[in-house]
Amino acid sequence: MKNTYGESVSITLFGESHGKAIGAVLDGIAPGIPVNEDFIATQMNKRQSVSSLSTPRKEADRVQIVSGVVNGYTTGTPITFLIENMDTKSSDYNQLSEIARPGHADYTAYCKYHGYADTRGGGHFSGRITAGLVAAGAVALTALARKGIRIGTHISACAGISDRPFEDITKDIDTLSALSFAVLDKEKSARMQEAILSARSEGDSVGGILETAVIGFPEGVGEPWFDSLEGVLSHAIFSVPAVKGVEFGDGFALCGMRGSTANDAFAIKNGEVVTSTNHCGGILGGISNGMPILFRTAIKPTPSIFKEQNTVNFKNKEDTVLTLKGRHDPAIVHRARVVIDSVTALVLCDQLALRFGTDYLGG
Amino acid sequence: MKNTYGESVSITLFGESHGKAIGAVLDGIAPGIPVNEDFIATQMNKRQSVSSLSTPRKEADRVQIVSGVVNGYTTGTPITFLIENMDTKSSDYNQLSEIARPGHADYTAYCKYHGYADTRGGGHFSGRITAGLVAAGAVALTALARKGIRIGTHISACAGISDRPFEDITKDIDTLSALSFAVLDKEKSARMQEAILSARSEGDSVGGILETAVIGFPEGVGEPWFDSLEGVLSHAIFSVPAVKGVEFGDGFALCGMRGSTANDAFAIKNGEVVTSTNHCGGILGGISNGMPILFRTAIKPTPSIFKEQNTVNFKNKEDTVLTLKGRHDPAIVHRARVVIDSVTALVLCDQLALRFGTDYLGG
Amino acid sequence: MKNTYGESVSITLFGESHGKAIGAVLDGIAPGIPVNEDFIATQMNKRQSVSSLSTPRKEADRVQIVSGVVNGYTTGTPITFLIENMDTKSSDYNQLSEIARPGHADYTAYCKYHGYADTRGGGHFSGRITAGLVAAGAVALTALARKGIRIGTHISACAGISDRPFEDITKDIDTLSALSFAVLDKEKSARMQEAILSARSEGDSVGGILETAVIGFPEGVGEPWFDSLEGVLSHAIFSVPAVKGVEFGDGFALCGMRGSTANDAFAIKNGEVVTSTNHCGGILGGISNGMPILFRTAIKPTPSIFKEQNTVNFKNKEDTVLTLKGRHDPAIVHRARVVIDSVTALVLCDQLALRFGTDYLGG
Amino acid sequence: MKNTYGESVSITLFGESHGKAIGAVLDGIAPGIPVNEDFIATQMNKRQSVSSLSTPRKEADRVQIVSGVVNGYTTGTPITFLIENMDTKSSDYNQLSEIARPGHADYTAYCKYHGYADTRGGGHFSGRITAGLVAAGAVALTALARKGIRIGTHISACAGISDRPFEDITKDIDTLSALSFAVLDKEKSARMQEAILSARSEGDSVGGILETAVIGFPEGVGEPWFDSLEGVLSHAIFSVPAVKGVEFGDGFALCGMRGSTANDAFAIKNGEVVTSTNHCGGILGGISNGMPILFRTAIKPTPSIFKEQNTVNFKNKEDTVLTLKGRHDPAIVHRARVVIDSVTALVLCDQLALRFGTDYLGG
Repeated sequence: MKNTYGESVSITLFGESHGKAIGAVLDGIAPGIPVNEDFIATQMNKRQSVSSLSTPRKEADRVQIVSGVVNGYTTGTPITFLIENMDTKSSDYNQLSEIARPGHADYTAYCKYHGYADTRGGGHFSGRITAGLVAAGAVALTALARKGIRIGTHISACAGISDRPFEDITKDIDTLSALSFAVLDKEKSARMQEAILSARSEGDSVGGILETAVIGFPEGVGEPWFDSLEGVLSHAIFSVPAVKGVEFGDGFALCGMRGSTANDAFAIKNGEVVTSTNHCGGILGGISNGMPILFRTAIKPTPSIFKEQNTVNFKNKEDTVLTLKGRHDPAIVHRARVVIDSVTALVLCDQLALRFGTDYLGG
Repeated sequence: MKNTYGESVSITLFGESHGKAIGAVLDGIAPGIPVNEDFIATQMNKRQSVSSLSTPRKEADRVQIVSGVVNGYTTGTPITFLIENMDTKSSDYNQLSEIARPGHADYTAYCKYHGYADTRGGGHFSGRITAGLVAAGAVALTALARKGIRIGTHISACAGISDRPFEDITKDIDTLSALSFAVLDKEKSARMQEAILSARSEGDSVGGILETAVIGFPEGVGEPWFDSLEGVLSHAIFSVPAVKGVEFGDGFALCGMRGSTANDAFAIKNGEVVTSTNHCGGILGGISNGMPILFRTAIKPTPSIFKEQNTVNFKNKEDTVLTLKGRHDPAIVHRARVVIDSVTALVLCDQLALRFGTDYLGG
Repeated sequence: MKNTYGESVSITLFGESHGKAIGAVLDGIAPGIPVNEDFIATQMNKRQSVSSLSTPRKEADRVQIVSGVVNGYTTGTPITFLIENMDTKSSDYNQLSEIARPGHADYTAYCKYHGYADTRGGGHFSGRITAGLVAAGAVALTALARKGIRIGTHISACAGISDRPFEDITKDIDTLSALSFAVLDKEKSARMQEAILSARSEGDSVGGILETAVIGFPEGVGEPWFDSLEGVLSHAIFSVPAVKGVEFGDGFALCGMRGSTANDAFAIKNGEVVTSTNHCGGILGGISNGMPILFRTAIKPTPSIFKEQNTVNFKNKEDTVLTLKGRHDPAIVHRARVVIDSVTALVLCDQLALRFGTDYLGG
Repeated sequence: MKNTYGESVSITLFGESHGKAIGAVLDGIAPGIPVNEDFIATQMNKRQSVSSLSTPRKEADRVQIVSGVVNGYTTGTPITFLIENMDTKSSDYNQLSEIARPGHADYTAYCKYHGYADTRGGGHFSGRITAGLVAAGAVALTALARKGIRIGTHISACAGISDRPFEDITKDIDTLSALSFAVLDKEKSARMQEAILSARSEGDSVGGILETAVIGFPEGVGEPWFDSLEGVLSHAIFSVPAVKGVEFGDGFALCGMRGSTANDAFAIKNGEVVTSTNHCGGILGGISNGMPILFRTAIKPTPSIFKEQNTVNFKNKEDTVLTLKGRHDPAIVHRARVVIDSVTALVLCDQLALRFGTDYLGG
């Protein structure tokens, strides 16, 4: 299926950046999970631009829950999140409909939809569609938290500047939940923000790497083959616009190690099986081993830049140049972290429901 | 589903390393595709160990086609590939059933299957199960080739030594198809093989990075959200044992670039839309743009090493040490490349069938 | 998946009878299909009660299209239909939440959702949720019509009175499209409506049989095993509330025939393969044979009746009696016919997209 | 997917009637279920012809378990059942490849597979493929029995003769398990068998109705919409060759009832919620209510008859006549009953695994 993902717990996304509304349907989540609209609003805010870093789209992104929640609890039937689009200056984009913005999906959308797609502001390809993921993800994060499962993502690198790695993950997740720019090392945070502003002042943009940790996830969840935890997580994470790489545990760095370093020794600690290191990112043979799940996501630089770029008119098949105008972010890595948290939460809820049944996460 | 992947063209894997047989069912592939058993055998051989690099498992891996092929052509109904296990020294593994081999799935399998799984030689988790993928992949590769779509994978890095990048991809794919150790630069190939032998002599192992190119793939295939080409490819690729990272185009390296560098300028060449560079790996907004699809796969070092390792008896919950014996590869990166080609071919056949219908790849 | 159905073209349903809104997301439908809001309204009206036959719920059921349609054409991305609930007298139902209405899902919903479900007016189980199916089905019906594929359903039987069978199907479908009470024989139509009013006057209800014909559907679509046309159609049709039986062609009557009668002889007519009879309902081996697809759907009597009924309080586990009050239909068979048309259209669009590709139905 | 069905527990079918082998892959079934090869053989025998009623295909149908079972227990990984074809007189069928047998899928297979399909003996469309379902179903039936869930099917009608209905279902299931011709009333059984022989002597065939009961199935399993128990069961049951109708509870007969009769009154019995009647077949709103699940399946007369029939050569597009020769059954209703039991068991295992988790049915 195209805009639906998940087996027992699934998410369906809909909407275009400048259409009437965007949203999501979250289906299969257990009944009896408390739905806190303030927490949803908090998560939505994390997805918004940090005001100092971009020309923000001013709209409130108020989430309406249209179905599936009664008296503050999930009913067990589909939850529909609806977010109306208000501040939609579609005139900014009209001239672009035949000219491919480099790094954007205008041309591939044309190949697929033959000119019928809504191209205003990226349409259905817009990062704005992740708002539905974040709203649904807030419910999934609440469900997981009630089982002691917590997720946190920080900006591991941006514009060539690296944050410190996770240390005390529980504490780091607490720290991250309060930050609008999710960097653990304050000095690095300041430097990254400067680098973003510097790119912005040059009409350019930067990318980054997000690092995510999941703690409290039970062992024995996942599959050896196609529904390996790595497989189902990466599938969903690569849906997020601008993601071009995903690695688990030490990922690409493992390729330069020897087995004697890369293997995580097992040990007994407080009567439980643990590993002394966590190069594998908490997943062996596609299945969780009870240690923190760790992965990194590569976010390419925002393709909307304000320098003149060579491109084509794909209808006329003619070369042309393009200089974008309007409202654009010089970076999205700081906004994407809550999207990654949300996607991760949704996938893990699905995995837990498949493993332990549809009531597992419920009230 | 657990051991089945794909929507219109799907693959189901079965078997354990030391059971009676392993295999695969390839369903939904178009009727009328020629099935060349010699080509299947060639592909199977690429999956076998290079004799100089490991103590090979001697068995022939002869593929029986049990259904779905008549008079040398696909029928359109499920094709079943069966590979009997012959050379199965299961006694090598018996003592391990309660002791977790570090880096292997013994412990996570126990958490999931409660001790009922076949643990001999990795059982259903064994890399041996990829033989079914390779057999099915051979049919998928043939189907794609008839449409002018070709796939090639080289060892981009191994033990810290890097191959040259793809240059003339068509020519490079030709070169790679004849190599048993798929490195484009001969001198680097020799050095990598030395490094593998060196690790082997120390009872250790090495990992590597595979780089894959797909040429001739039509534009306009894929989806903006969950079934992005990156999503569906990564889902399948992460199923391959030892894969811990996947990146498309410049992947993680994009994170350090600015947008003005990372964006691929469009241009008209011979009346067609192309890009001047290919940082995005041929995929924009989850959809193919007609340029080569490029991605890299991180393969961790083989976890089976012959040094003493700290581990646990997970039934007794006691610390112990383990020194493995038996037949093991000091590297699998050179064997995995044909698996990646195969998985890629299977996923792309599914995508093409979804986009253009079930007859598209047929006779 | 629970509230989503279809592979290449899929439909997701959401909402509760007395919540804020109900609706549907139609995903995967080709770009370039004209969306006629008047036709959607016409179809929605067919789903409403015939005023003379019931105490109607007065609300307009105005369908808002929230995404996926631009300038009157499908974009190829998800189409979201939203229908606000206005006339929701939820107080009618409050006293029922612990008492199982016989024939309704109150008790089974309680077993599944543990008391968290929205029980007002049937909640997510309500026939009202079919409004989303009808809205999405209108787009599917338009797409099919552009390919010469038409669908019509009549009330084959109601309250023991039988309509005449299909004769000239094309003409009959024309006739049916203009009827609010879809019976081909006018005299039988009057008798059925009298029987419904008679049941109503006694506080009782009646059921019926719907017969559906699809013409113009191409041969060679379907699958021999699980995705037989019968399998995929019945799966969706049994989702419609009150459906308890589905039969294709002569269905259950075939069981009393001999093979020499039941077999449909093939013949050549105007250079095409046809069958002289159509006992099989246009499907052989799960695959369309180019003849009209014919099936019948059994609709049980509306469970909401106004006689005293024995039942239980399922929380207290005590016997009790119940006499319903409020607004209820003495029959739904005449309203269900447009739902069956809609579901059929959605399933057939999915089958055609799988068979011929995602552009097949498009502009 | 085409030859795969189920979400958490799935079945994949493969093979052609006269190819090397047929079989099935059962995936996702819990670890620790005992696999009794004698019981599998017993079930396979029930699928074979009753010797007095047909010219039997003599082969043993010995089931090889190729993977997924160790030491007599399921491992939790895919179980592959392989049945070699031995007694394959393919010459009987060769002359038919361009001539459509009425009632068979020869023509529709040609439309779909363009002449590449294996047409010998029905190929992949053959009822013989149900042998894989029966083998897998035996494991599913064992798993259910360990939870107190039992399934039985009798021939409710054949050749116009009706068996008595289920009375004491537990006792009736015991009785049926020992019968090769599954009719509860002995006198009716004799008459049905005579009718079959009579049809056979005339070169003709008969159909029938199978009635299935499931007892001990827990309440609260199923879904309100697309994955209603009726939907998922009917989808699988319509895959069985020759099935043309499925009805739950009183099914089509409900259409002639009034609501006051059709509704099942609830009552408390031994502290549990029950219904006094079971017109709904144990399913309300798509979800089990804890009462026996009851449904009926219409089986059309065997299309292979020995009378001359009008048909066409579909390649030449010419009218012709056909008189079949060879080995054919005058009825399959008595052989189909174990197939229906098996399919039902597989679907219910999937539903239970989705509802209660993957360990629910395990050891």
